[in-house]
Amino acid sequence: MAKTAITPTRADDYPELYQQVIRAADLAENSDVRGCMVIKPWGWAIWENMQRGLDGMFKATGHENAYFPLFIPLSFLQKEADHVEGFAKECAVVTHHRLVPNAEGKLIPDPASQLEEPLIVRPTSETIIGATYARWVQSYRDLPILINQWANVVRWEMRTRMFIRTTEFLWQEGHTAHATSEEAQEETMKMLGVYADFSENWIAMPVIQGEKTAGERFPGAVSTYTIEAMMQDRKALQAGTSHFLGQNFSKAQDIKFQDQNSAIQYAWTTSWGVTTRLVGAMIMTHSDDDGLVMPPRLAPKHVVLLPIYRNDEEKSQVLAYVNSLKQELEAQDYAEGKVRVMIDDRDIRGGEKNWYHVKRGVPLRAEIGPKDIAKNGVFLARRDTGEKAGVDRGELVATIGKRLADIQNNLFQRALKMRDENMRSIDTLDDFLAYFTPKNEDKPEIHGGFARCHFSEGPDLNEFLKKHKVTIRCIELDKAAEPGKCFLTGRPSAKRAVFAKAY
Amino acid sequence: MAKTAITPTRADDYPELYQQVIRAADLAENSDVRGCMVIKPWGWAIWENMQRGLDGMFKATGHENAYFPLFIPLSFLQKEADHVEGFAKECAVVTHHRLVPNAEGKLIPDPASQLEEPLIVRPTSETIIGATYARWVQSYRDLPILINQWANVVRWEMRTRMFIRTTEFLWQEGHTAHATSEEAQEETMKMLGVYADFSENWIAMPVIQGEKTAGERFPGAVSTYTIEAMMQDRKALQAGTSHFLGQNFSKAQDIKFQDQNSAIQYAWTTSWGVTTRLVGAMIMTHSDDDGLVMPPRLAPKHVVLLPIYRNDEEKSQVLAYVNSLKQELEAQDYAEGKVRVMIDDRDIRGGEKNWYHVKRGVPLRAEIGPKDIAKNGVFLARRDTGEKAGVDRGELVATIGKRLADIQNNLFQRALKMRDENMRSIDTLDDFLAYFTPKNEDKPEIHGGFARCHFSEGPDLNEFLKKHKVTIRCIELDKAAEPGKCFLTGRPSAKRAVFAKAY
Repeated sequence: MAKTAITPTRADDYPELYQQVIRAADLAENSDVRGCMVIKPWGWAIWENMQRGLDGMFKATGHENAYFPLFIPLSFLQKEADHVEGFAKECAVVTHHRLVPNAEGKLIPDPASQLEEPLIVRPTSETIIGATYARWVQSYRDLPILINQWANVVRWEMRTRMFIRTTEFLWQEGHTAHATSEEAQEETMKMLGVYADFSENWIAMPVIQGEKTAGERFPGAVSTYTIEAMMQDRKALQAGTSHFLGQNFSKAQDIKFQDQNSAIQYAWTTSWGVTTRLVGAMIMTHSDDDGLVMPPRLAPKHVVLLPIYRNDEEKSQVLAYVNSLKQELEAQDYAEGKVRVMIDDRDIRGGEKNWYHVKRGVPLRAEIGPKDIAKNGVFLARRDTGEKAGVDRGELVATIGKRLADIQNNLFQRALKMRDENMRSIDTLDDFLAYFTPKNEDKPEIHGGFARCHFSEGPDLNEFLKKHKVTIRCIELDKAAEPGKCFLTGRPSAKRAVFAKAY
Repeated sequence: MAKTAITPTRADDYPELYQQVIRAADLAENSDVRGCMVIKPWGWAIWENMQRGLDGMFKATGHENAYFPLFIPLSFLQKEADHVEGFAKECAVVTHHRLVPNAEGKLIPDPASQLEEPLIVRPTSETIIGATYARWVQSYRDLPILINQWANVVRWEMRTRMFIRTTEFLWQEGHTAHATSEEAQEETMKMLGVYADFSENWIAMPVIQGEKTAGERFPGAVSTYTIEAMMQDRKALQAGTSHFLGQNFSKAQDIKFQDQNSAIQYAWTTSWGVTTRLVGAMIMTHSDDDGLVMPPRLAPKHVVLLPIYRNDEEKSQVLAYVNSLKQELEAQDYAEGKVRVMIDDRDIRGGEKNWYHVKRGVPLRAEIGPKDIAKNGVFLARRDTGEKAGVDRGELVATIGKRLADIQNNLFQRALKMRDENMRSIDTLDDFLAYFTPKNEDKPEIHGGFARCHFSEGPDLNEFLKKHKVTIRCIELDKAAEPGKCFLTGRPSAKRAVFAKAY
């Protein structure tokens, strides 16, 4: 059996492999604060690339950034009934604004500093942003408002997993207000499309675009749309959501305007967000048993140059070669910018150094020693396929952009193939159970994948799904209506939904 | 008297003018949460430009970004004695993690969800980051750690002013750890230099680099360095600080390492930060009685094109001209990027539209109507000087980068002249009082400016300064020792300090 850099392997214990990939790639670690993580520089640089990519797409679709307060007055949460139900259960509550030493000199919240109204650390910002929009909107001329915010939010999670579900997380939240329902619905779908575009073309992660069923809607939304991806353990990950809020929030928050006929109307609003969870999605879509694999568009570095030498004479020759190669490569275009190159000249063993960059997922590694220089070339290794070969220097420089694009494309095609091979239609209860029931009690996470099933929502279906830890992911957008019968209840069904175990 | 766009004028009521400039330029507004503001898109775009500029400088000096938790366990604050003294008085304390409805259906913090240990919303992150570094550092090979974080922080302020002092604010905080005191001190000064460079070359704001006196040090620091700028009301604004923390925090947090001789040593740490206050600094350094004036390097848009037409025929001609001009201008280089151009084709009166962009501080406005097109030119207005003239189109395109650089330079020179004209050495108590005592009781904010005085710290000086609302800003770095006598006490003094009223 081939030795792998990560223990356990994907097949042995996927959840544990995920943690070990994060550790080996130096992406993040748990902090001293329950459920909160420290995002380390290599992990942060990936998120920075995601932010830059998404931010460009938001601006290209006419949005501007702004910033709203971290705190939400408790009474604001209470304005929208469904919303409070969804978020009041899991939030950080600020009750005091000062500490004082007690009799033993230990700090305690100063009772004299208790707030009249507690403040909630934002779990999401519909309420505070809506209250602001209510001040900004008077006339139809003030609409649409197309604003995005990059921010941290807090939801008090009981079971956390780095990047995927943490108490504090980072995200962007778009909040828009429109004069008509049609325009708001169009915005909702446009941003879902932006998320799908970003997922497929930047993260190299195929996604299913769909609508959430009533039970899975955002609290307060009229309809919630989602992009769903398949991780390598065949579980689903909700990677982004876009909500059509109708007039629910504008009525709760009094966002109204005078239309062209001087009639007073409530605005139509939307919200949409993706989070640092996307870093987790990237990890679980591409990483293998040797650690992180990154799509080049998100990689902090595209190429690492590894100089090899045995004495000072060789060192000066090799480093001169490597430095000039770095400059040449960095002058080449790739995707929306230039090629990003690093040199690792640390004084550690070559094998250790090589594995260091394998585990950190750098797309291309180039070893360069005196023999390579004699041939005016490098010894190039590709992270995604493991391919290794000597490459002429001039050829490398000329093809570097194309090589990175090939890797990006290969990762997407590989993930797409994996997903499509693990997605099928299921029509009977027996087939459903066979698909989702673990074959091996030692590996309870391994199951069939995504199942397209006819369904009829109701307490019976909900209870059944809960028992088997299966969830309805979404009703796919690009599928025509196809009448059928619920696989469990036999009740009539207008359309299939995608069922899966999920993160 | 000339009519101005902002009421009151700078001379009449500077603090009120500041608020009105922010309102007229649509930069920010107070939120529904006490002491917290909403940063609107035009204000946010300025901060985004500041972030981009600073982030590039941090990376160029070898720093990486990372992210640490929003919350700090209460016990962490208590580890460094001075630090807790400095920050425990003004912080948001999270005590519960759930809300429940009470008997009347009103939401209250669920008593069952009270946290065993309260969490503090970070007022600054030395303690939580130090605890992390303690895990990361074992050997001298793990040093230096050069990390920056972009984040929000909360300090419970009683008197707030938009951008200048708010309960929640945004900032970057650099936190570094080094093997030697010399290296940490070098880092402290290097980052002070980066701040001064950014202030002068991006914000066009001259700053004095100096060391804080003991009474003004960051709680827990060995020495605090500052950049101090003069606002147009001649008050000082602390624009950024860089702290040499010695081993105070590493001892409190157990950041230690094995050195090259296998001896265990405590690391030497630094921290440094600038905040959204810089937006306030920019506003108060350059704005005039007509509203915001922006240095081009920070302006979201450099040029606004204002098409003028009276009928559909003219409209199509003018818009075609304006669109092609926009493309040509946007292809030109300025500073680290391209020229940023917008077209304002809203259907509102020309005068109103013009003033809209004056108040928002766009560096150049170009009116373009059929007559201008006949001459193949534009009618160009410069925001900083008010100069207006017809300019040939080709000449405008060829000189746009230079014109923006001229504006940037003019703003800096103007601010420098203003500051230098309002800074002098003072050696006697009478002169000191004459300089800082308001001449006009109606305008208590107007005073002399910056005074360089010999001083001797002590309760008598502190009390005197407090009474007259004057503060010691810093001891200038580039001044040689010059023995003298304290202007108040007559005690011997080794060096002058800069005294000023301050924000």
